[in-house]
Amino acid sequence: MAESWSFLDTVEPNFRPLVVIELAKGTKEETIEWFTKRIVDKKADGGAQLLIKPLVTENGHENIYLVGASHLRLLLGAETVGLVKECNDNSMRTFTYSSRKTFKDFADDNHNFLTMAECQYIIKHELDNLRAKNEKMIPGYPQAKLYPGKSIVRRLLTSGILVQIFPLHDREELKKLRHSWYGRVRVGYQPLDDIRCYFGETIALYFGFLEYFTFALIPMAVIGIPYYVFAWEDYDKYVMFATFNLLWSTVILEVWKRICAILTYRWGTLLMKRQFEEPRPGFHGVLGINPVTGREEPVYSSIKRQLRIYLVSLPFVCLCLYFSLYVMMIYFDLEQWALDYHRENESNFSSLMLYVPSIIYAVVIEIMNRIYRYAAEFLTSWENHRLESSYQNHLILKVLVFNFLNCFASLFYIAFVLFDMKLLRQSLATLLITSQILNQFAESLLPYWLQKRHSKRMKQRACSQKTDIDLSLAEQVNMEKEMGTYLGTFDDYLELFLQFGYVSLFSCVYPLAAVFAVLNNITEIYSDALKMCRVYKRPFAEPTANIGVWQLAFETMSVISVVTNCLLIGMSPQVDALFPDSKMDLVLTVAFVEHLLLAIKFIMAFVIPDKPRDIQMKLAKLEFESLEALKQQQMKLAAESLKE
Amino acid sequence: MAESWSFLDTVEPNFRPLVVIELAKGTKEETIEWFTKRIVDKKADGGAQLLIKPLVTENGHENIYLVGASHLRLLLGAETVGLVKECNDNSMRTFTYSSRKTFKDFADDNHNFLTMAECQYIIKHELDNLRAKNEKMIPGYPQAKLYPGKSIVRRLLTSGILVQIFPLHDREELKKLRHSWYGRVRVGYQPLDDIRCYFGETIALYFGFLEYFTFALIPMAVIGIPYYVFAWEDYDKYVMFATFNLLWSTVILEVWKRICAILTYRWGTLLMKRQFEEPRPGFHGVLGINPVTGREEPVYSSIKRQLRIYLVSLPFVCLCLYFSLYVMMIYFDLEQWALDYHRENESNFSSLMLYVPSIIYAVVIEIMNRIYRYAAEFLTSWENHRLESSYQNHLILKVLVFNFLNCFASLFYIAFVLFDMKLLRQSLATLLITSQILNQFAESLLPYWLQKRHSKRMKQRACSQKTDIDLSLAEQVNMEKEMGTYLGTFDDYLELFLQFGYVSLFSCVYPLAAVFAVLNNITEIYSDALKMCRVYKRPFAEPTANIGVWQLAFETMSVISVVTNCLLIGMSPQVDALFPDSKMDLVLTVAFVEHLLLAIKFIMAFVIPDKPRDIQMKLAKLEFESLEALKQQQMKLAAESLKE
Repeated sequence: MAESWSFLDTVEPNFRPLVVIELAKGTKEETIEWFTKRIVDKKADGGAQLLIKPLVTENGHENIYLVGASHLRLLLGAETVGLVKECNDNSMRTFTYSSRKTFKDFADDNHNFLTMAECQYIIKHELDNLRAKNEKMIPGYPQAKLYPGKSIVRRLLTSGILVQIFPLHDREELKKLRHSWYGRVRVGYQPLDDIRCYFGETIALYFGFLEYFTFALIPMAVIGIPYYVFAWEDYDKYVMFATFNLLWSTVILEVWKRICAILTYRWGTLLMKRQFEEPRPGFHGVLGINPVTGREEPVYSSIKRQLRIYLVSLPFVCLCLYFSLYVMMIYFDLEQWALDYHRENESNFSSLMLYVPSIIYAVVIEIMNRIYRYAAEFLTSWENHRLESSYQNHLILKVLVFNFLNCFASLFYIAFVLFDMKLLRQSLATLLITSQILNQFAESLLPYWLQKRHSKRMKQRACSQKTDIDLSLAEQVNMEKEMGTYLGTFDDYLELFLQFGYVSLFSCVYPLAAVFAVLNNITEIYSDALKMCRVYKRPFAEPTANIGVWQLAFETMSVISVVTNCLLIGMSPQVDALFPDSKMDLVLTVAFVEHLLLAIKFIMAFVIPDKPRDIQMKLAKLEFESLEALKQQQMKLAAESLKE
Repeated sequence: MAESWSFLDTVEPNFRPLVVIELAKGTKEETIEWFTKRIVDKKADGGAQLLIKPLVTENGHENIYLVGASHLRLLLGAETVGLVKECNDNSMRTFTYSSRKTFKDFADDNHNFLTMAECQYIIKHELDNLRAKNEKMIPGYPQAKLYPGKSIVRRLLTSGILVQIFPLHDREELKKLRHSWYGRVRVGYQPLDDIRCYFGETIALYFGFLEYFTFALIPMAVIGIPYYVFAWEDYDKYVMFATFNLLWSTVILEVWKRICAILTYRWGTLLMKRQFEEPRPGFHGVLGINPVTGREEPVYSSIKRQLRIYLVSLPFVCLCLYFSLYVMMIYFDLEQWALDYHRENESNFSSLMLYVPSIIYAVVIEIMNRIYRYAAEFLTSWENHRLESSYQNHLILKVLVFNFLNCFASLFYIAFVLFDMKLLRQSLATLLITSQILNQFAESLLPYWLQKRHSKRMKQRACSQKTDIDLSLAEQVNMEKEMGTYLGTFDDYLELFLQFGYVSLFSCVYPLAAVFAVLNNITEIYSDALKMCRVYKRPFAEPTANIGVWQLAFETMSVISVVTNCLLIGMSPQVDALFPDSKMDLVLTVAFVEHLLLAIKFIMAFVIPDKPRDIQMKLAKLEFESLEALKQQQMKLAAESLKE
């Protein structure tokens, strides 16, 4: 390894821009000099050993820098981040530079061995892990303090010197991807492997899940249609439909785990041990030795983190949930008051007044959502998680419960306090359909239109002032830096999660929900694809082995829906009529069925293995081989110590 | 490794008998010759490379053989079975002969590095894995067929040529153990590490669990006593007690996982990868290559096994459960009939008749239990599990549900069909106390008394005919071979499991159950210890990392008890009185509380980590080091292939 690193110095690099760094206008010269020096510096001196070049545009120097790296540097970086690639013997192995020849498709002149997304991920990882050594502050900015081990890029970002870092699009690849993804009308699967190569595993997995989920909803939709067409209102048909839905939702969630394992095994991320990686840039602590890897890195007590989670974050979340419920109750009171007012003095003004509570409530909810999200981000960041995945999971969980309550509390209130099934069906349909239309519009079409207008203007300006041969790159950078930033898959999953709630929580009241969900998701695939390719900056790839806490969220939803559906069926007048003598028998029967369904769900989840057998075998084989290798190493060490 | 094995040939062994093999009387000479040759044969020739010596007694040759092995052979065997031992740097590592010097307490002349239990386990493992090569049958017994890969010892056992194999007691060690275990009246913990050294991990873990469980029940017992003393019958106190019990039982089961991890980490079995071991002797299949380890061994399709489990075993078990319920219903009918008969013609005969149904039912249950157990063993064996642990788990699960039903079905019937709380409390107390007394008597005291009488007679006979200096060993072997065989921890765990059921399922009806359980368990520790040390043959040690499917069984019981307790409280007249207007409100409240408790239980089980943090770190460190070693190995291989 040491040999390869020194070899790196003598190679004249072939510069290919991968990542763009934009510094604030008026950044001090001394700061720029120090920062670029740290980026270019050798690994041994604590640098990132990358290449950096200022972007020269028609307006001269604009504090925009292009970062790249030599092919060799990227391969060494792939080893550092622990990429897993396929070997010549079809097994998946952690890439190491010394064993590079054993990997499939590797050749010294094949620069496509690492995908562009991987190269950009490596560069981001190296930049994030560029840590302060002896600097007490950022040169030129005494207020931006540094301490040994603090991520430099993160401090630059928080102090506003660094405006943004983003990876460049590859126009040619993007065009190909667009074509195969949504360019032609076609029936079939998405090109998940291509999406993964271009956008990374997290996004590819989201699209995989979206597609899988859409297919999985089709049986529910198909069974739901006749209920609408023939206006079936028989109790036994509803029971059958609900029972099918409840068991089916367990099956699809279990099967997804298996499909997810197949996908991520092929992509190598299932075997990537991210817990052995360096901590996320936001992680802080005293510089110490990681007890697992033996590397020097910030260390933070896990007990402190637990205390912060359970003594601060948890009570805060509970308080917010309580507050949100309280606001909802006020809304229902207001609604009642408006209704009474309208009934007493009927006038144009009073009928207008009928809408006021809803509008106020919608605005308040939106404000609460934003404030809560900000607070959740702050709290999760303050909890100081070492791994990005655990940070994400804690953040998602916090935001999730709040959104769940805001979305479904009013429906629960209508269903189980007001007992108004007609209103429930109405509200459900309204909520589902309007939210889907609004989402599609606000998420993709509107930004797309804005983006198109903007880029047209940009192009016009650029064409009229063409002066440099490098312009096409400069033009691209300037255009992309103005594009919106994709904030991660959170909102996309949340949409699916709430949709799953509408479909499953009250499925026996409104069987048509699944139909709308399927229709929405088919267009959602296209609009999300459009959004990724056209509207936003290219996001950094993020390796991931599963959908994280979302799996848990969907599973919990499916358990809750057993309870709600049993209650709804129990409350229906048809079922009521079956037990004319004793309400007690009715309730006990419903409770018994509910427990039976829950038991079946848990047994099914327990019995269906999370990973297909061949993946299990491959994982076991890897474990066996690693342990054997450790044994061999031990034996060699012992033999050497004997010789001495 | 190859070097060490050949080195073995030149060493003159110092014979120490470890395991006894008893062949049937009149076994053909040719068979004995072949069998002993296979045991002594070199590993390279497919033998076990152990030492074997006939036991000479006053009656001459009695077809009893003593098996031992040289110290070196045992160390090599420890490597084969994958024992994990503590290194000099306090980390736990898989033992290898070449790296032996790096292990704590290792010295070439320290024959206590491996405990006697470990040595015996190694010998058993080697004997079990003595597999047929080209033999078509056992020489001398053409009807005992063999095929390549078939375990020879297993075929000898099934064809009755081999009567038994058992490990010898170490009288001195046993005396020490007995003294520190139950020899003196003392307050404190059991010497679990000593028990583990003598009896192996499975038995030590059982005693660890028994002790832990006893301590864990103490809070329940303490809270339960005032209910009896002050004859509390208030509903709120019962609710408090039941709620405490339900949450407490979750906590104790979660905490046990952590304690179990601490124990088995210290013993090395947590790190032992038993799934990479050779298959259990009963496993059969076509000789092939194990895809994980690459070793040659019988291979059997997992789909076939799944089909056998789900298409044959599962329906059979369900049928048996149904049949058992049916028998119970007949019993209740008979009981009713006897009662009616007694009421109509009151006489001595009729009052005798009152007992007849119970007696018939008890006898039928016992017969059913025995037949079912035999069938379960047959079925599980037929399912052909590769690992001993998975065989055990499937067997336990089968027997468990049946026993659960037989034990608790009548109580459930009394509670939820007859609604007779007084009868429930009575039956519960009777069942709990009589079963405890009977168990203690039948399990330990009776065999102990029989054993004592028998060994006295043996000793008297031996003393009068003393002729040989080797007699003390022969005497010991002759005495031990007549002792009962300990059939594993199944019955002991089952007893605890049913006890847990009595304590938790109806805890709000009979708070005193925990008190009886604690009292029983304290004596149970002593009587079980007596049983292990005095009554039974020494059992072979069996490494294990946890209590297997019992954990699941106890957890399921604790979930079921939430449902039963909520139902019982809901049915109590005091609670009934709280909702005078609407039974509906009562039922809904109870259901709500039940769901809340279940949710809390699941969240608690999810939040409490299964392993303490330091064990997690140590496991992560081992994984990291193995993966690093694999990388190193890969790099070395790549470097070598480049040189060529």
